[in-house]
Amino acid sequence: MKDLESLSAYQAAKALSRREIRASDLILSCLDRIGQNESLIKAWASLGKENALSQAKTLDKGALKGMLHGLPIGVKDLFDTYDLPTAYGSPIYKNHYPSTDSVSVALLRQAGGIILGKTVTTEFASFKPSQTSNPHDPKHTPGGSSSGSAAAVADFMVPLATGSQTAGSIIRPASFCGVVGFKPSFGKISTAGVKSLSISLDTMGCFGRTVEDVALGVAAMSGDHQMATVEELHNKPRIAICKTFEWDHAQKESGAALAVARHTAESFSKGVIGDLSLPDACKEIALLQTRIMLSEMSRSLTFEREHFSKKLSLPLLKQITEGALISYDQYSKDLLAAKLAKESVNALFSNEIDILIAPSAVGEAPHIKESTGDPIFCRGWTLLGLPCINLSITSGPNGLPIGVQLIAAPGKDRFLLSVARAFARALPDPVMRDQA
Amino acid sequence: MKDLESLSAYQAAKALSRREIRASDLILSCLDRIGQNESLIKAWASLGKENALSQAKTLDKGALKGMLHGLPIGVKDLFDTYDLPTAYGSPIYKNHYPSTDSVSVALLRQAGGIILGKTVTTEFASFKPSQTSNPHDPKHTPGGSSSGSAAAVADFMVPLATGSQTAGSIIRPASFCGVVGFKPSFGKISTAGVKSLSISLDTMGCFGRTVEDVALGVAAMSGDHQMATVEELHNKPRIAICKTFEWDHAQKESGAALAVARHTAESFSKGVIGDLSLPDACKEIALLQTRIMLSEMSRSLTFEREHFSKKLSLPLLKQITEGALISYDQYSKDLLAAKLAKESVNALFSNEIDILIAPSAVGEAPHIKESTGDPIFCRGWTLLGLPCINLSITSGPNGLPIGVQLIAAPGKDRFLLSVARAFARALPDPVMRDQA
Repeated sequence: MKDLESLSAYQAAKALSRREIRASDLILSCLDRIGQNESLIKAWASLGKENALSQAKTLDKGALKGMLHGLPIGVKDLFDTYDLPTAYGSPIYKNHYPSTDSVSVALLRQAGGIILGKTVTTEFASFKPSQTSNPHDPKHTPGGSSSGSAAAVADFMVPLATGSQTAGSIIRPASFCGVVGFKPSFGKISTAGVKSLSISLDTMGCFGRTVEDVALGVAAMSGDHQMATVEELHNKPRIAICKTFEWDHAQKESGAALAVARHTAESFSKGVIGDLSLPDACKEIALLQTRIMLSEMSRSLTFEREHFSKKLSLPLLKQITEGALISYDQYSKDLLAAKLAKESVNALFSNEIDILIAPSAVGEAPHIKESTGDPIFCRGWTLLGLPCINLSITSGPNGLPIGVQLIAAPGKDRFLLSVARAFARALPDPVMRDQA
Repeated sequence: MKDLESLSAYQAAKALSRREIRASDLILSCLDRIGQNESLIKAWASLGKENALSQAKTLDKGALKGMLHGLPIGVKDLFDTYDLPTAYGSPIYKNHYPSTDSVSVALLRQAGGIILGKTVTTEFASFKPSQTSNPHDPKHTPGGSSSGSAAAVADFMVPLATGSQTAGSIIRPASFCGVVGFKPSFGKISTAGVKSLSISLDTMGCFGRTVEDVALGVAAMSGDHQMATVEELHNKPRIAICKTFEWDHAQKESGAALAVARHTAESFSKGVIGDLSLPDACKEIALLQTRIMLSEMSRSLTFEREHFSKKLSLPLLKQITEGALISYDQYSKDLLAAKLAKESVNALFSNEIDILIAPSAVGEAPHIKESTGDPIFCRGWTLLGLPCINLSITSGPNGLPIGVQLIAAPGKDRFLLSVARAFARALPDPVMRDQA
């Protein structure tokens, strides 16, 4: 059997559960692909080849373990793994082996998933670019902080990979790499055993090449197994395009992407509101997210700052210092303002709308030396705790992918997946429709 | 200088900051006390004598480090410490040294606190009794799961100790041991680096012998340093006695305690509502807490169940199995019901009341072989995420302490401390007034 690595996670999981393919063959295909391209892409912090193969052989012989039986998975190197080094993208934790798996990784393994290796994260999931390249053009960034996971899935090195988002670390790299990225509702997946940056914002999720892939991943990581079966839409949803209060940051290609999104959504919805403004309580959500993140980061990284400050990068040290200067009273006020913003958006979803469509990023992936890209179009949604999914929709002036994000009310994760699949099926470009 | 170990944390911190006492002398006094009583009380999982003394000597010679300069602290053995073994009360993690401190411990140290040792926790903070005794009568339990912290503070082994509450693991042992226990608002203190039991419920806090002690502890652990200065009340608060929907579980002495509480509160408040009913949306909060906790526990302990199920106690395995049988849809419904209960209580606080006073426990501490006591009177408040503080108010038929808890609206932690101090000052018993 050839080209197993090109199967989507959902296809592979189905074939594995029917014993139509062997887990060990799938792992070998992925390792082949990694062997060919890793020197260019640099998506992996570490690989557990022997372990993965031996687990695959055991699963090939044994009973079905769960919904991910034999599926190879990349795990962002921010998640603890007991059998693979976990460095959080920092030299402080070089060769660090945690004593346990993060809760989400333990659940992936319990469902039969095989952790193929750890994917590159930026330093403690912050903004300093990693060495990873964008598979669509290695001169460009894959985005961050889940750089390796997005790149590995885009490059067919692995069908599924975990990510985490505090500002825009799932949706932005998914957009830059042209893959499906799913950040579920805040709190859906346990953060235990994932290096903490910001307790009010850190959200776990995953990358795949189809909507059903990421449904499968989040189903296993959260324990919400019913989510793995994406349901057909029962009713036509009410959809609105939301350019957000940050629209002046958008590049031209983002406008084109929203136009395609609007056209696409019209075909299966009750009609699309062309330009919905968020409530006034949301005017400052990007700023609030920034301040809350910096304030919490300055506390979360206390141990590292006290013991290893020379091993922290200068950009990160600067962020920590900036965060420590924010007064606790300001931080409390910001949390309260965030609460009011959440209530206003919940009311919007209750009364007027089912799904928002918004830009995933400013535009195409920037040059690799420049930055991991601006998370400005994700900050607010992360703060609001809403489930978001990136779908690739067009390409920009350099031929790099452009995505949009679909957004639902908090807790409406399954519904969001149903809409996202309907949306992908309705896309004008046949290649893009493969995301369905 | 004699009897340094009998200083409250607040007194000791003040004397240390003025260089009136030496940190090394205070540590030696605490170690003396531990040497005398530990064979009976068994409050400590491990002690870091040499390390603590050497840190104390360094602090005695150096500049003031922070608000806890030189203060010895006990840390519940559920919190990661890089230099002391961290076993989470389980044989699985015997001799386990985490690579970092939990965020809260790092913040305690950054403020100048000295971690004297790790205090006994029940197995993964669940219900199986530990070996720790109640200092008021060693035949009785100190409560759980923060058994060692409550007992060590009650026995003058250490002036301040950390705790965590998922059901009733701070307030209940504080009541049984006759100390002040403070569970701040949910999310006030980072849970990162504390073994996760239940992501929607786990709340960090601390034990001291006065209101100002626990204010100091939570101020440092949260980064809300202004909290360390407990303000005088500006206005007379509106107070209500709330017997809760679980009142039929209360023993006779709890009724007597609420009568004393009511009398006490009348002296400094706008008047006390004698028997306030919670909104109907709160009728099932204890049940909701139980199901949400069990469901989340079954996921949180996946790694341990998969790799070390034989090293889990039978009661815990039973709980995990029970939790795994709760459907995800039931769990989602319960989270939604919890949200509605929170909203109803927030409205109550906005419109009618500033402070609730409720039982801390069913009654006195049960016999040590029986159980760590019933957390029924804490479950609901933990679910609601409200800040709670236990104050000792009377004693029961066996002469063991009985406490009540004062409860404020979410985020009103500083206000709660102000009321708690006014309340303690107004208590009829002069010994109890020492909690102020």
